[in-house]
Amino acid sequence: MRGAILHAPGDIRVEDRDRPTIIEPTDAILRLSAACVCGSDLWPYRGQDDYGPEAAMGHEYVGIVEEVGGAVITVQPGQFVVGSFFASDNTCEICRAGYQSSCIHRQGVGGAQAEYLRVPLADGTLVATPGLPDEDLIPSLLTASDVLGTGWFGAVAAKAGPGRTVAVVGDGAVGLLGVLSAKQLGAERIIAMSRHEPRQNLALEFGATDVVAERGDEGVARIKELTDGLGAHSVIEAVGTQESMMQAIRATRPGGHVGYVGVAHDVQLPGTDLFYSHVHLHGGPAPVRQYLPELIDLIWSRKINPGKVFDLELPLEQAAEGYQAMDERRAIKALLRP
Amino acid sequence: MRGAILHAPGDIRVEDRDRPTIIEPTDAILRLSAACVCGSDLWPYRGQDDYGPEAAMGHEYVGIVEEVGGAVITVQPGQFVVGSFFASDNTCEICRAGYQSSCIHRQGVGGAQAEYLRVPLADGTLVATPGLPDEDLIPSLLTASDVLGTGWFGAVAAKAGPGRTVAVVGDGAVGLLGVLSAKQLGAERIIAMSRHEPRQNLALEFGATDVVAERGDEGVARIKELTDGLGAHSVIEAVGTQESMMQAIRATRPGGHVGYVGVAHDVQLPGTDLFYSHVHLHGGPAPVRQYLPELIDLIWSRKINPGKVFDLELPLEQAAEGYQAMDERRAIKALLRP
Repeated sequence: MRGAILHAPGDIRVEDRDRPTIIEPTDAILRLSAACVCGSDLWPYRGQDDYGPEAAMGHEYVGIVEEVGGAVITVQPGQFVVGSFFASDNTCEICRAGYQSSCIHRQGVGGAQAEYLRVPLADGTLVATPGLPDEDLIPSLLTASDVLGTGWFGAVAAKAGPGRTVAVVGDGAVGLLGVLSAKQLGAERIIAMSRHEPRQNLALEFGATDVVAERGDEGVARIKELTDGLGAHSVIEAVGTQESMMQAIRATRPGGHVGYVGVAHDVQLPGTDLFYSHVHLHGGPAPVRQYLPELIDLIWSRKINPGKVFDLELPLEQAAEGYQAMDERRAIKALLRP
Repeated sequence: MRGAILHAPGDIRVEDRDRPTIIEPTDAILRLSAACVCGSDLWPYRGQDDYGPEAAMGHEYVGIVEEVGGAVITVQPGQFVVGSFFASDNTCEICRAGYQSSCIHRQGVGGAQAEYLRVPLADGTLVATPGLPDEDLIPSLLTASDVLGTGWFGAVAAKAGPGRTVAVVGDGAVGLLGVLSAKQLGAERIIAMSRHEPRQNLALEFGATDVVAERGDEGVARIKELTDGLGAHSVIEAVGTQESMMQAIRATRPGGHVGYVGVAHDVQLPGTDLFYSHVHLHGGPAPVRQYLPELIDLIWSRKINPGKVFDLELPLEQAAEGYQAMDERRAIKALLRP
């Protein structure tokens, strides 16, 4: 089968790879309907993260179950499924508390920019849709696998909800879907922080009530101006840098909540600033599995259309162009068709 | 009047100072019934924190209202009152959300190791007891002014409650009263981390079910052993160092809560560790004012006896000995009688 391999920073190639097979009786093999490039894929692509030799890329996926191991009982061949980027048993105490991405048996899922994918712990990881989806729903279902689930977790961690003003730091796909999530969760006011017009427009379409183009100190000052000098009740952090984390903490009022979902890179939070900020801080890898049934339902019933974050669609063979377009911020998010 | 002054690290003297007077119409003047030395007073005493020239020390207080400004309506001369170390209006949006120690009009209260004290924003800061207290209740009421309120906030921030295992990092007065608070809040299991026998005993008396003497990596490993390998649901951090913060974060299970109330000193939290820890982090200066009515009620009705943390009582004139005893860990907490 064909699949994307990272050979060196900037060097993504689609090549022949062995088609995955069942290894454990809890595995499933999927024939992928769509895959995509994640903002977090850009870290190793830019040489800013380590990666293994000839790394098989991709961790967001939807597809048709091709084969299941002998112990799999909740999904079966022919079903269309969505899964999380972390495989989980969904039965341990940590999973039952809603933190499937820290499952005591968690395993990473990798190599999803390909034709076929092995998913471990299939019963605890995959959720089947009510039937085979209409073609136009596939991009939205694909977002549920990571970026929508991650934006949703950011909004939940930030306690977005009725009566609350939510600011979103980061205008990538996760930040934009954080806006959509905050809207669904009933936030009164949603401030998108973005200086790129197409992204500002998508944020407004997803439910943002205000757009702030300033960053850093000026961005914080603008959020305070918009909130009686107090700061937002909720801030979703969807970048993962020192600047974005501090911007999020400082834009939040005392007693408010920061939900941080940008994968942290070279972040060191100063204890004294954090102490006197009085914020609640919560985040990490999104427990996407927890939200999948609800998110699939919202998409299936066409109440939300998160697939709009895909502004570039390419055949899998052109994965390299997808990476390059996202790296250069020409595209918000690239969908790849195997 | 007499009051304690820090002249230089290690050099505390009780001297004649001007008796405070009403400056703003919202002020009250208290004749203090008792004062004490706080763990946080030890930072400047040790030269590890900056302090002003001839700093008037002390921020925990109980006493009789001597005089009030013309705008004060909720307390009156002759009443016995307890107040917080931060004066607050208790009416702004931040106060109403329960974060009085970040009140938009907050002012520090200082110079309480003395005979008299000026308290700004008296209506929003002071709470009167139901009558003049019995002498034996005064130490407990004094703890409500800071260490009990702080331990309580730590327990609330850590979501201590029924069905939850709570670990407490730090065996100073705040940590010990964090144990008492977790017990009052209904925690199922309370693990005190302490290697000092008198403090271990007081922790057990306050409701600890387990004592762990190990620290750092070994302490974390012991907490995990006691919690099926998962970590505590709730950890109260009551020290404020890099080691104690990391010990608290690492002893908490994914999805669990760290309540940190030790004033942060030279703490830098590594973003990646925090991200993958999946903990909730909340803390800062305790909004003592929020808890005063409840805490006074628990003390007045003799349901709790937090005053037991005072294992040294001295006349105000001997304040220097109180500092020295706490610095050398000969005393948990020193009460000073003006």
